[in-house]
Amino acid sequence: MRATVMYAAGDVRVETVPDAHIVEPTDAVVRVARAAICGSDLWPYKSMPRSETGRRMGHEFIGVVDSIGSDVQTLKIGQLVIAPFLICDGTCQFCRDGVQPSCVHGARFGGEGIDAGQGEAVRVPYADGTLIVLPVTEDTALMPSLLALTDVMSTGHHAAVSARVSPDKTAAVIGDGAVGLCGVIAARRLGAERIILLGRHPDRIALGTQFGATDIVSERGDVAVEHVRQLTDGVGVNSVLEWVGLQDSVLTAMDIARPGGAIGRVGVPEEDSIPVGRTFWKNVSMAGGPAPARAYIPQLLPDVLEGRIEPGRVSDRTTSLDGVPDGYRAMNDRKSIKVLIAP
Amino acid sequence: MRATVMYAAGDVRVETVPDAHIVEPTDAVVRVARAAICGSDLWPYKSMPRSETGRRMGHEFIGVVDSIGSDVQTLKIGQLVIAPFLICDGTCQFCRDGVQPSCVHGARFGGEGIDAGQGEAVRVPYADGTLIVLPVTEDTALMPSLLALTDVMSTGHHAAVSARVSPDKTAAVIGDGAVGLCGVIAARRLGAERIILLGRHPDRIALGTQFGATDIVSERGDVAVEHVRQLTDGVGVNSVLEWVGLQDSVLTAMDIARPGGAIGRVGVPEEDSIPVGRTFWKNVSMAGGPAPARAYIPQLLPDVLEGRIEPGRVSDRTTSLDGVPDGYRAMNDRKSIKVLIAP
Repeated sequence: MRATVMYAAGDVRVETVPDAHIVEPTDAVVRVARAAICGSDLWPYKSMPRSETGRRMGHEFIGVVDSIGSDVQTLKIGQLVIAPFLICDGTCQFCRDGVQPSCVHGARFGGEGIDAGQGEAVRVPYADGTLIVLPVTEDTALMPSLLALTDVMSTGHHAAVSARVSPDKTAAVIGDGAVGLCGVIAARRLGAERIILLGRHPDRIALGTQFGATDIVSERGDVAVEHVRQLTDGVGVNSVLEWVGLQDSVLTAMDIARPGGAIGRVGVPEEDSIPVGRTFWKNVSMAGGPAPARAYIPQLLPDVLEGRIEPGRVSDRTTSLDGVPDGYRAMNDRKSIKVLIAP
Repeated sequence: MRATVMYAAGDVRVETVPDAHIVEPTDAVVRVARAAICGSDLWPYKSMPRSETGRRMGHEFIGVVDSIGSDVQTLKIGQLVIAPFLICDGTCQFCRDGVQPSCVHGARFGGEGIDAGQGEAVRVPYADGTLIVLPVTEDTALMPSLLALTDVMSTGHHAAVSARVSPDKTAAVIGDGAVGLCGVIAARRLGAERIILLGRHPDRIALGTQFGATDIVSERGDVAVEHVRQLTDGVGVNSVLEWVGLQDSVLTAMDIARPGGAIGRVGVPEEDSIPVGRTFWKNVSMAGGPAPARAYIPQLLPDVLEGRIEPGRVSDRTTSLDGVPDGYRAMNDRKSIKVLIAP
């Protein structure tokens, strides 16, 4: 079969790899119907040292069950299924707690010996725990929004939940990329009265406004902080959704949170230290981490199926497998917010 | 009148100061019935540079209203009142939100031009917002437990609330000082099934066990982390109450929190940076700061009045004003957990 392999920063290829096949009795093999390139795929695209064997890419996909291992209970061949961006067994105490990214059998797509999403097929370990059956067929027009549930929409929702967004309160979303825009959707969905989007790309801001952003702050650093304060009677916002992870954006998050407020951080921290005094004295909480997409997909699915949210609108390009290297380039050059793949 | 003044590390004196008197129409003057020395009073006792004018000490007191300003609405002369450890106006948006430590008119006892608790009387600014009337008389045997509400019990409760202690879950309390012991009371009160107290002082551990600690961990650092993990099937606790604020104890808090868990931190951070990766990847939240004692006192008061909690048991010594310097020494030498003052 064909799949995407990254060999070094900037070196992404689509090539022939061993066919996906059942290895463990708890596996399912899924033929990929639609996949996507994630903003986080750009990290290795910018920085990965050269590798002889390469790294299989892609953790956002929807597909059709092609075969199942003998222990798989909940899936049938031919069903359309969606995968969260991390593999989980669905039975350990962390899965039961709804913290699936900490699953004791957790693994990531593209990890050692595991297929990844940007290809023709994927062997999915712990298929019962990982996969969720979708009540639609693969020709649905909802595919882009369903695909967003695998990662970006679940991650935006996790930021909103972790930032305790609630009705009639004010939220700020730092960054206008795909996750930030999904954060706007999530904040609106949870009832935020006012949603301030910090971003500077006109096309993304326009989409954010359609998703429910009420105010735009295009400055950065201290000037952005001052602007947010002006918009909020000098006090800052109740909830901050931070998904960028850069030191500057985390500091901005801390500075625009009002006393008693909350920061939901879902961006992988760039630096492993933050000045905690900024949040301590004003009783600002900080929560978040890798999103438990496996827990959120069933919660968010009805809103996608019934058209109440349209996170698929953050994808602005669809390509075949052959076009994947171009797709990486387009996202890296900010010519595209998010690229979908129709293998 | 006589009051406690600190002039330098180790130099605490009781001397004559100007009588407390009404300055603003929103003031009340309170004759102190009982006060206390707080663990946080030991920070300047260990480190304060010499000062010519000195610093008035004490932010934990209960007293009788002696006089009121013309704008005071809710208080009458002769009432027994309790003060939270910070002054607040009771009307600003942060006070209404229950984040009184961020009150726009907030101030601390002993601040510039403001009396402090370890003396014969105190001028209390924003008396309507700050003070709470107690439905008992000053000869009540409950006085030590009522006095604990001013700070240590409210702070322990804030750690427990911030750490999301809930029924049937496991909590750990780092540190066996007065706040830690109150944290045990708070965790028990909120229904924690298991409470692990990390402490090493036999008398304090004994009291913690009476308060509801189910397990004791007397090691420190990595060995303590390992011990907590052993006690919790290798996974750590749902809630960590951290009030020490030292870098090591914050790291311990992060390491013993289980995935999806929460840290309630109420200790002033020793160092203004923490390694956030430890909490990010396992979705551990961190919340807390200066406790909104003004909000908590009415919530906790019924439990004290009806004898369900006895935080006053953390005080193990009572002295007159003349004995205050000895009281500081005893607490600093760890010969006393907490000293009460009967002026």
